[in-house]
Amino acid sequence: MAKDKMKTMDGTKAAAYVSYAFTECACIFPITPSSPMAEYVDEWSAQGLKNIFGQTVDVTEMQSEAGAAAAMHGALCAGALTTSYTASQGLLLMIPSMYKIAGELLPGVLHVTARSIATHALNIFGDHSDVMSTVQTGFALLCSNSVQEVIDIGGVAHLAAIKSRVPFLHFYDGFRTSHEQQKVEVIDYDDFAKLVDMDAVKAFRDNSLNPDRPVIRGSNQNPDIFFQAREACSPFFEPVPDIVNEYMQEIGKITGREYKPFDYYGAPDAENIIVAMGSVCDTAEETINYLMAKGEKVGLIKVHLYRPFSAKYFFNVYPQTVKRIAVLDRIKTPGSPGEPLYNDICNLFFNADVEKPLVVGGRYGLGSKDTLPSDIVAVYENLKADEPKSNFTISIIDDVSFTSLERGEDIDVAPAGTIQCKFFGLGSDGTVGANKQAVEIINDHTDLFAQAYFAYDSKKSGGITVSHLRFGKKPIKAPYLINTADFISCSNQSYVNVYDLTAGLKPGGAFLLNCVWSPEELEEKLPAKIKRYLAKSKINFFTINAVEIARELGLGNRTNMIMQAAFFKLARVIPIDEAVGYMKDQIMKAYGKKGDKIVNMNNASVDAGINNIVKIDIPAAWADAADEPVVEKEEPDFIKNVLRIMAKNEGDTLPVSAFKGAEDGTFPPGTAKYEKRGVAAFVPRWIKENCIQCNQCSFVCPHAAIRPILLTEEELKNAPAAFETKPAIGKQLSGLAYRIQVTPLDCMGCEV
Amino acid sequence: MAKDKMKTMDGTKAAAYVSYAFTECACIFPITPSSPMAEYVDEWSAQGLKNIFGQTVDVTEMQSEAGAAAAMHGALCAGALTTSYTASQGLLLMIPSMYKIAGELLPGVLHVTARSIATHALNIFGDHSDVMSTVQTGFALLCSNSVQEVIDIGGVAHLAAIKSRVPFLHFYDGFRTSHEQQKVEVIDYDDFAKLVDMDAVKAFRDNSLNPDRPVIRGSNQNPDIFFQAREACSPFFEPVPDIVNEYMQEIGKITGREYKPFDYYGAPDAENIIVAMGSVCDTAEETINYLMAKGEKVGLIKVHLYRPFSAKYFFNVYPQTVKRIAVLDRIKTPGSPGEPLYNDICNLFFNADVEKPLVVGGRYGLGSKDTLPSDIVAVYENLKADEPKSNFTISIIDDVSFTSLERGEDIDVAPAGTIQCKFFGLGSDGTVGANKQAVEIINDHTDLFAQAYFAYDSKKSGGITVSHLRFGKKPIKAPYLINTADFISCSNQSYVNVYDLTAGLKPGGAFLLNCVWSPEELEEKLPAKIKRYLAKSKINFFTINAVEIARELGLGNRTNMIMQAAFFKLARVIPIDEAVGYMKDQIMKAYGKKGDKIVNMNNASVDAGINNIVKIDIPAAWADAADEPVVEKEEPDFIKNVLRIMAKNEGDTLPVSAFKGAEDGTFPPGTAKYEKRGVAAFVPRWIKENCIQCNQCSFVCPHAAIRPILLTEEELKNAPAAFETKPAIGKQLSGLAYRIQVTPLDCMGCEV
Ligand code: SF4
Ligand code: SF4
Repeated sequence: MAKDKMKTMDGTKAAAYVSYAFTECACIFPITPSSPMAEYVDEWSAQGLKNIFGQTVDVTEMQSEAGAAAAMHGALCAGALTTSYTASQGLLLMIPSMYKIAGELLPGVLHVTARSIATHALNIFGDHSDVMSTVQTGFALLCSNSVQEVIDIGGVAHLAAIKSRVPFLHFYDGFRTSHEQQKVEVIDYDDFAKLVDMDAVKAFRDNSLNPDRPVIRGSNQNPDIFFQAREACSPFFEPVPDIVNEYMQEIGKITGREYKPFDYYGAPDAENIIVAMGSVCDTAEETINYLMAKGEKVGLIKVHLYRPFSAKYFFNVYPQTVKRIAVLDRIKTPGSPGEPLYNDICNLFFNADVEKPLVVGGRYGLGSKDTLPSDIVAVYENLKADEPKSNFTISIIDDVSFTSLERGEDIDVAPAGTIQCKFFGLGSDGTVGANKQAVEIINDHTDLFAQAYFAYDSKKSGGITVSHLRFGKKPIKAPYLINTADFISCSNQSYVNVYDLTAGLKPGGAFLLNCVWSPEELEEKLPAKIKRYLAKSKINFFTINAVEIARELGLGNRTNMIMQAAFFKLARVIPIDEAVGYMKDQIMKAYGKKGDKIVNMNNASVDAGINNIVKIDIPAAWADAADEPVVEKEEPDFIKNVLRIMAKNEGDTLPVSAFKGAEDGTFPPGTAKYEKRGVAAFVPRWIKENCIQCNQCSFVCPHAAIRPILLTEEELKNAPAAFETKPAIGKQLSGLAYRIQVTPLDCMGCEV
Repeated sequence: MAKDKMKTMDGTKAAAYVSYAFTECACIFPITPSSPMAEYVDEWSAQGLKNIFGQTVDVTEMQSEAGAAAAMHGALCAGALTTSYTASQGLLLMIPSMYKIAGELLPGVLHVTARSIATHALNIFGDHSDVMSTVQTGFALLCSNSVQEVIDIGGVAHLAAIKSRVPFLHFYDGFRTSHEQQKVEVIDYDDFAKLVDMDAVKAFRDNSLNPDRPVIRGSNQNPDIFFQAREACSPFFEPVPDIVNEYMQEIGKITGREYKPFDYYGAPDAENIIVAMGSVCDTAEETINYLMAKGEKVGLIKVHLYRPFSAKYFFNVYPQTVKRIAVLDRIKTPGSPGEPLYNDICNLFFNADVEKPLVVGGRYGLGSKDTLPSDIVAVYENLKADEPKSNFTISIIDDVSFTSLERGEDIDVAPAGTIQCKFFGLGSDGTVGANKQAVEIINDHTDLFAQAYFAYDSKKSGGITVSHLRFGKKPIKAPYLINTADFISCSNQSYVNVYDLTAGLKPGGAFLLNCVWSPEELEEKLPAKIKRYLAKSKINFFTINAVEIARELGLGNRTNMIMQAAFFKLARVIPIDEAVGYMKDQIMKAYGKKGDKIVNMNNASVDAGINNIVKIDIPAAWADAADEPVVEKEEPDFIKNVLRIMAKNEGDTLPVSAFKGAEDGTFPPGTAKYEKRGVAAFVPRWIKENCIQCNQCSFVCPHAAIRPILLTEEELKNAPAAFETKPAIGKQLSGLAYRIQVTPLDCMGCEV
């Protein structure tokens, strides 16, 4: 890999990069998680970036995805190479225009961050239910399984569309590939330019609607000729697999990375294989390494070109030794005999002149459910069973229809030397930003590969964020959350009572807690579960009072630089001196224009982060710390059995039966009152003497944690003595008592 | 069948009838060919018709199908049993809401007149590409194959939706079943009412969104719980096939007509069978009768419940003797390994514990391409071949990808005694209305079954209409145009030079031509091809001068009653005296209020139609009539090879290769000038002396056949002598000559 072409980016930036090269018009409408693609293209267009034709991309935002697709159709008719970006319901709105674009053989390209479709509930995360809803439109469907593949294969979508006249939908996993920061090698636009079939571009432009050479298109056809005319398109679809394959080979010559419409990974004499597409393939690959090391004959067929579906390219890589196949689909299609990819593989073997393997199908990863190496092991174990289960699920416990395969114990399939770090932060506290910086530092300045993924809960600002960073000597193939960590950091002390922070921390690993507590106070503050884990697993436990340091340095509540420095010190991914240098370079880049004072303040926070780490000697007694007796609260079943589990970030453990009665998406209302967070390090205090009863404080608080209250005399009489009030101002309020009441448990400590 | 329950209606009225029974809210938006369903419901609602709950249906028209589906979702959430009606792109716009409705287990019902989706061209006719685009939404898909089935099975959709909580999409073939007039037995609303699971209705209403018992629905779910909650719906889909089957049995008890999720027809020991759904099943049944009479072991599995797909019910009817299966799909999905039903059947057998048959798949009927018995024979012949072709097409000639099966010679599979009649008319000349009347007369007053289908070209008013009427002692199962006729009538003499009017007329059949020609003039006017056919096939040839009769009776150009009477006289479906009585009854019903004069005028036209038929003695020489030498015109290839064929109503014969270069739907412009019709019996004449140059005549003519023209002196000089003009009025026009020019070939003779 050419070092100067290595960049850190996520899938959306990668897709934006390749698509910009080949795009003349971009017709866009934002939808999570596809929006950044269009945003990058828009930004680069505004900056005057040139595509391979020497033009800046013409970007038009429409009123909806339906409009974006229709505009795309129109622009293609007018002879402009046109691209759009979407996902989920947005893609559904494009379906009518997709039939037209494919029917009129227009080489448009859609880049899709594959996302769940709203059914019983909305879900903004990843699965393939959107893409699978378009299989009949005539678009070619091309899948990339990682950020690097988005670069390598995303370009093939454009190149092959131009050459074949068949439009392409290029997709990759939403909220995994789309939002995973990876170190990737980009392909130069000059290299792309050489691959474009310029004769086809010219033919496309010559075929556009133009009053100077009028034709009729989009007309009506009656029963007499429609069928024949519809069949006439077949010769355009038939060569698509070959065209895709050719371009994959061309890209391979440039990059050294080889792809085919279907790729095989694993034992050449595999007996049990998986067929899948999307980021799960990376998980499967690492699991295969692990299983092959144990002598198992396992393998994986990765689907890149899903439509047109080519039996030829499938059997080109299919080992003749295979006896059993598990097909993984990332979609549930109630009422169908099986999910789409599974159906295709059954159909393939039913009609193929080969020895028939046993084929079972399973569902995984719906709505971004993480698929772990242990799930992949479960799939192979299932294939080894006397009667392998079909129509199975993984990663969940289905105690209703009993489809689920049992997940074995957690396994760590990361290549030796991989360092895995997890950071608990509070939404908008800067943890995520700092981690992105850390990844860039390591990717830009070392030969290491860093991967970063950021898990948010849907409460956004003020919710929990967990950053998952991996560092290794080879490209990181682990598109799932970290469950075996070398280092865990927590920037909010209140989390010790809410989350199982140290779960998955490796024996001898490091745990860093930002807290205001002295070593002695930890005895009282830490829950027994964490204490036991720290002691039994011989964890290196550190604290830092970043909150106080930040205040002292005049940084307010911005503790992120301090925590980042502490991370570099403790996780030892690179020598700390180098890390300090890079961090200070970045500070200069970011704040240089703001003057020395700001720069120095930030530099000081780096030093403080390194120098103020407190190593905690773990008392031997912690190994036997006893849990506080659990006070069973009087709460509705749903709160106890579902909401409390979810609030602890352990919703993954809920079995299917937890949703009995909620199959239609019905949840009880008023659950927020059970879900107080108590995350603020500082809460506002009402200074009665200064209060002019303007209620501005209440208005300003975005979390409604500050509320003005009026009391009658009766109520005041019954209030506790410490409940201070003052007479309410205003004629209509005479006789009432006034008070500003702060709710510490709702306060986010944001200090607005 | 109870005689008082027999009615004449098409599929849209049948669907409207059953859906009204179970519907509280109808959220609608019109799209061809579904619109009449919503129109009937709207009309009946306005008339106060009560559904089985004693309510009139609340009908709301939205701004689009997307709105109709969303309103349907909303109304269902609010606890109203809600229905909509749509097709084609309209159905595509509903997809996002369909996922929600199914996901929230809301028992909505869609009635769909299955229609083609616009690809390279728009097509408003029938195939299954719309319905197949919804297979992943979670809706149950239930198919009716005939108008009677729409009554019998359409109700099952509502009943099963209520009981199972799974929404249903009930579909039947657009423009065939939807617009075919049939004599059917309706089911009383009282009978339907007894079948409704009222506990389920109550549970549905109790589960509605209501501020008095608030719940949260349609919320967001994150990766932690979405997958488990999505799997929780499985137990609702699993029992659907049993529920559908139970209701089919209940309906069977009422009607005596038995249905199952899959039905079998044919030899109990069949070796070669077809699997299909939609109106083609009727064609296949009649063809199977024909082939079984010849000793062939053939059969048909009719799919009613396509989703959820039930292997159990399939194998309940599957003959163990089957060796080969042809699956017919009415959709083309470029790039997929096979069309949807074919894939499902391959998948079924791949996983079933039965001896594997050979399964091939084929496409038929796209965009309402007629599937004839001879096509079905071709499918069975293909199965008998050494290596049956898969991915085949029927009814067309595919000389590009060579998928088509050769159609054998036309066969007549109608039961003995069936009378088949074909009427060529001019759009809006009243032929279609008269034929509808004729069908009603026969259905209402006799035990005969009449079927009527009306083929329009897309020029609407002024285009050709061909009415296809069949009469028989048993329900007519022939959902295709008539290609072997007992009687053919043509109400426009100009057609003799355009269309092959007598094609398919049985030897000894009757041909009635409305023309102003005397028997002697026929010698000159009739083309040789028709003459030869009349002579060689010993056709009984009649003419009638209905145009003159109508004028004489003061009926203007309304010749339809005259032609209808002549039809009854010649086709001998029922005794002529009875027919006259019924026709006069209908005249009284229609015109009674307008006074005796109108009634008598129409009655007279009936008598005149009967009494003015001229039997033509066919000269023996006609058998050898020689074609006029064809003058090869200087025309572009496309005009000669495509447009001229289509204009002759012979577009069906164009092979796939005719659309080479037009695969993307591109046609040359300016073709109208080659397609002059010359259908007017009388054209306007400009009376120069009376003209005040107001140009009103030009403005009024809807076909732009009357145009004012200005000529320069130069032009006038070069004009032929007969080219009359007068000086143009108006200062700016001084020196110019004025003339009104009529184009006889564009004139429709409408006499506006
Ligand atoms: S109401 Fe709130 S903001 Fe206003 S003076 Fe009182 S404490 Fe301050
Ligand atoms: S312009 Fe036409 S309508 Fe007017 S007076 Fe002359 S012929 Fe009649």
